[in-house]
Amino acid sequence: MQLLKERILKDGTIKPGNILKVDSFLNHQMDIPFINKLGKEFKRRFEDCPVTKILTIEASGIGIAALTAQYFQVPVVFAKKAQSLNLDGEMYTAKVESFTHKKVYDVILSKKFLTAQDHVLILDDFLANGCALKGLIQIVQSSGAVLEGAGVVIEKGFQGGGDELRRMGIRLESLAIIDSMKNGSLIFRESH
Amino acid sequence: MQLLKERILKDGTIKPGNILKVDSFLNHQMDIPFINKLGKEFKRRFEDCPVTKILTIEASGIGIAALTAQYFQVPVVFAKKAQSLNLDGEMYTAKVESFTHKKVYDVILSKKFLTAQDHVLILDDFLANGCALKGLIQIVQSSGAVLEGAGVVIEKGFQGGGDELRRMGIRLESLAIIDSMKNGSLIFRESH
Repeated sequence: MQLLKERILKDGTIKPGNILKVDSFLNHQMDIPFINKLGKEFKRRFEDCPVTKILTIEASGIGIAALTAQYFQVPVVFAKKAQSLNLDGEMYTAKVESFTHKKVYDVILSKKFLTAQDHVLILDDFLANGCALKGLIQIVQSSGAVLEGAGVVIEKGFQGGGDELRRMGIRLESLAIIDSMKNGSLIFRESH
Repeated sequence: MQLLKERILKDGTIKPGNILKVDSFLNHQMDIPFINKLGKEFKRRFEDCPVTKILTIEASGIGIAALTAQYFQVPVVFAKKAQSLNLDGEMYTAKVESFTHKKVYDVILSKKFLTAQDHVLILDDFLANGCALKGLIQIVQSSGAVLEGAGVVIEKGFQGGGDELRRMGIRLESLAIIDSMKNGSLIFRESH
């Protein structure tokens, strides 16, 4: 998505450890009209899918999922990290290793909100090694719902998680794929 | 807000420890068209305020803030809980005690995203003892921005945090105020 690539080049910054910061428009401060455009693009790419629910994970996926859900006219459910006193009853759970935070945490979702009747689109802001997405996919599989696909705003292609998911047969749409961040310069994968 | 009260009575459940669960429509599963209506109501109540930025806190405030921001046509910034490897530079920080999770955590916001030129509307899903809001207010004060007001979806009036903030002179708009949850039945405060 050209608009996104231009915005990353304009406002993204590269930090040590292959961390790309896009916190001025995507995941700390949120440029709402811009994210609405990303939402429309997700709708365009998954136009043919009978999505009944959008699944994301706290925290930075929530705003993107909420704005995108307006175009699909479906509810959002967001998985939570770690056990919460305020979640009761039956839960789907999966273990996830965070690239950014360098720790393992549990991802949980109330069973009430995902059933075998659902057709799920997973959305998130970033895809690096794919651990968060794999955790969400595991939750969808546990529920018996149909996984229609996954959409991420920025895929760090050089970390391999996205291509691994594609090899697994997951329909994955990344609005921008970065294939290299060497020497502080970004190289995007050609759009397919 | 009558629509919200009806929804709480229909879909909310009361758990031990004065916990009101509204996770089927507000903060685990999100009913997007419904939350859009809450957003419109926030806009109506703060119509006269020259808001330049909406401030919230992860995680469950983010979706509400993102949808509401569409009516104000301003960016959202969300404060993060605890230190993150992915936040650099200068931060505003405040300590917050969570009623639900019974622990103290740090709330942080990058100084880049709130300045003395901003007029801030704080939004959150719940207000109980008011600790989260007080943390956000402290951050706004540190930035030198003008605090236009705070909006919450559900205030647990019997926990006193809301009235304390009003006594401090904060313009606080709660879309529903619950004055009692005794014996499993909810009593709402009369709309003012």
